[in-house]
Amino acid sequence: MGKAKTVSPFAPKTLPRMAPISGVRFATAEAGIRYKGRTDLMLAVMDPGTVAAGVLTQSKTRSAPVEWCVAQLEHGRARALVVNSGNANAFTGVKGRETVKLTAKFAAEAAGCKPDEVFVASTGVIGEPMDAGTFGHILGHLVKRARPDAYEAAARAIMTTDTFPKLATRTATLGGVAVTINGFCKGAGMIAPDMATMLGFLFTDAAIARPVLQKLVASGAGKTFNCVTVDGDTSTSDTLILFATGAAASRGQKRVTRASDPALKDFTTALHDLMTELAIWVAKDGEGLTKFVTIEVEGAESSAAARRIGLSIGSSPLVKTAIAGEDPNWGRVVAAVGKSGQAADRDKLSIWYGDLLVAHEGERAPGYEEALVARYMTNREIKIRVGVGVGKGRATVWTCDLTHGYISINTDYRS
Amino acid sequence: MGKAKTVSPFAPKTLPRMAPISGVRFATAEAGIRYKGRTDLMLAVMDPGTVAAGVLTQSKTRSAPVEWCVAQLEHGRARALVVNSGNANAFTGVKGRETVKLTAKFAAEAAGCKPDEVFVASTGVIGEPMDAGTFGHILGHLVKRARPDAYEAAARAIMTTDTFPKLATRTATLGGVAVTINGFCKGAGMIAPDMATMLGFLFTDAAIARPVLQKLVASGAGKTFNCVTVDGDTSTSDTLILFATGAAASRGQKRVTRASDPALKDFTTALHDLMTELAIWVAKDGEGLTKFVTIEVEGAESSAAARRIGLSIGSSPLVKTAIAGEDPNWGRVVAAVGKSGQAADRDKLSIWYGDLLVAHEGERAPGYEEALVARYMTNREIKIRVGVGVGKGRATVWTCDLTHGYISINTDYRS
Repeated sequence: MGKAKTVSPFAPKTLPRMAPISGVRFATAEAGIRYKGRTDLMLAVMDPGTVAAGVLTQSKTRSAPVEWCVAQLEHGRARALVVNSGNANAFTGVKGRETVKLTAKFAAEAAGCKPDEVFVASTGVIGEPMDAGTFGHILGHLVKRARPDAYEAAARAIMTTDTFPKLATRTATLGGVAVTINGFCKGAGMIAPDMATMLGFLFTDAAIARPVLQKLVASGAGKTFNCVTVDGDTSTSDTLILFATGAAASRGQKRVTRASDPALKDFTTALHDLMTELAIWVAKDGEGLTKFVTIEVEGAESSAAARRIGLSIGSSPLVKTAIAGEDPNWGRVVAAVGKSGQAADRDKLSIWYGDLLVAHEGERAPGYEEALVARYMTNREIKIRVGVGVGKGRATVWTCDLTHGYISINTDYRS
Repeated sequence: MGKAKTVSPFAPKTLPRMAPISGVRFATAEAGIRYKGRTDLMLAVMDPGTVAAGVLTQSKTRSAPVEWCVAQLEHGRARALVVNSGNANAFTGVKGRETVKLTAKFAAEAAGCKPDEVFVASTGVIGEPMDAGTFGHILGHLVKRARPDAYEAAARAIMTTDTFPKLATRTATLGGVAVTINGFCKGAGMIAPDMATMLGFLFTDAAIARPVLQKLVASGAGKTFNCVTVDGDTSTSDTLILFATGAAASRGQKRVTRASDPALKDFTTALHDLMTELAIWVAKDGEGLTKFVTIEVEGAESSAAARRIGLSIGSSPLVKTAIAGEDPNWGRVVAAVGKSGQAADRDKLSIWYGDLLVAHEGERAPGYEEALVARYMTNREIKIRVGVGVGKGRATVWTCDLTHGYISINTDYRS
């Protein structure tokens, strides 16, 4: 791990109180996979009847655990989730696939389920073989110790370069019954000590059919987790899974089987709101950050185009270093829009920093006062709004500045 | 400009001797457009009969000078080239287009040609209005002072954050006659003090028809200037133009009118070789670099796919910070291949650092010795070779490491 980490200036003062969800329990252990003196293994066990839906990385070099989860999401029955930090079990060939299989076998034996009901995720260094034998025997103990309130411990065990655990909770009314959604995630850059990318796990007691859950989580990911960029580097391991135990059915919640069911409205809002909060926590823990940045794009050809323009701005080293330097250098935003590959009309482009219009219809705004914008740049939270001028697509993207801290963290030798 | 620049450790000890090219003359001036105490205006005048071909940025927010050059390349008659540094005249609306028109008008009056025979390029800060009136009157003096041997002065006048002038020269035999190609370029990042991107100007006395020249310069750009990345940020101003005076015709060189003419072989090789040298100088002057990096990709679906994979690796902040930290963290190369969006077979992927095989067929190479690779990483020049395993496409990309120096240069406030 190298040097001690500086905690993000955006770390929350207190963590949310997570109400237990009926049918979900957690336990963690120090398995010594890579780190010393901290937990690095997390097990979640779920009651029979739990279904899973998820979104995983599109990387062409995705990890063995990602492939395993994609396969199990076909049926979506879930009874256990095993996550380790310190080793991504990525680019580990046949051995990597065997490790996942063995992990699922050990967890299934411990939890009393089938191996294909076990979901597996790994985060950490890429390309190093990982031996499931070193932690397989621990899983039995974890099942016995698992508790419904151990969210913070679970969130801490999956951290890599994260400087704080990331947790969120919401309640919603579904068919007249109160249901809970809890979630935690990790991610702070795509790396460090190596590849330490985004993992997110969400849990609810709502009774919702798997295809409906899949639609909810996919549509949510598109405007939350997929709208965060720290350095533009995509990982081999990105995993987001939502588990629904269905326990609320015993309290009279009628199982939802159609995505068009109007009863879903409040639940969908709460779920997407929770995903937004978690996504923002990732940007607020971006490696080395000093400023949190929200980029709002409007007037693009489509919402997908708006998102791509936002990510082009949010991944631009030049935009991000300018923000770090408190330089109102909006010319770099112009260039980032131009390189996005998306339709944009230079002569209709407008840019705001906070409420200050800096560029209007293709040139510097009339009455532009650099001193005002420079003062705005001294804020800890910066908002950049871009009007593209070609359509009605909008998107919001979250990122952070690019500082010497990022370089220090990522030039650090792994061992 | 802020603080004094550290000269790149890869700066050449001596600059090449540039033999004059019949029909091309240069002059420079301190016009005070932005910088003080250095030249920032360059004029090239060319004899009647000169033709131009070029490649310009695809940015959706390209500058007014870029649009002007694209329009003039339709006919390709060239008598003058005006380049200024310090202000990119980009995102300057109608006023920006007027500035270009006025610049061409002033230069045409000075050089005794038509305005549409004047090419214009600008590099520097984006979004600031530029007044051609401040330097228009200087152009007449420059025409009078222009000399055929003033290449170094010309290369210096177009620099922004470059720490050294970038010049190259070649000779070739064309139809039995010796011809010369000279070129210079600027670029060191996409920025600093602001947007200071790639401009390249090439000159030859060869007599070659414009459509043929266009093919030669476009095919060359694809494997030279378009294979360099410093920070992955594309500019609004990228311009590469080749001017051919045709003076060699007077020494008996038969004008080449077909791209398939076998007489072109030696000239094409020399031209592309010169373009490669200039492109490499850009990477060797990358902002804040300590290491120069060559990335060779083979086994991709096509050469275009290989280039995109190479640029994905070469633009990855994680790969570049690992190189800066002398960390043989090839897992980051795996991730960069995965995120490129190009076809790749994870289980056939191989990676070499120098001659050391680090990854083979989807996992860590048998007999991998980290200490050997770590020793290799202490070299100033690093070569990464990637076998993608799906086809026969190859490409070479040049880049540099990502260091604290880059952050310092780019967080510097402009003024």
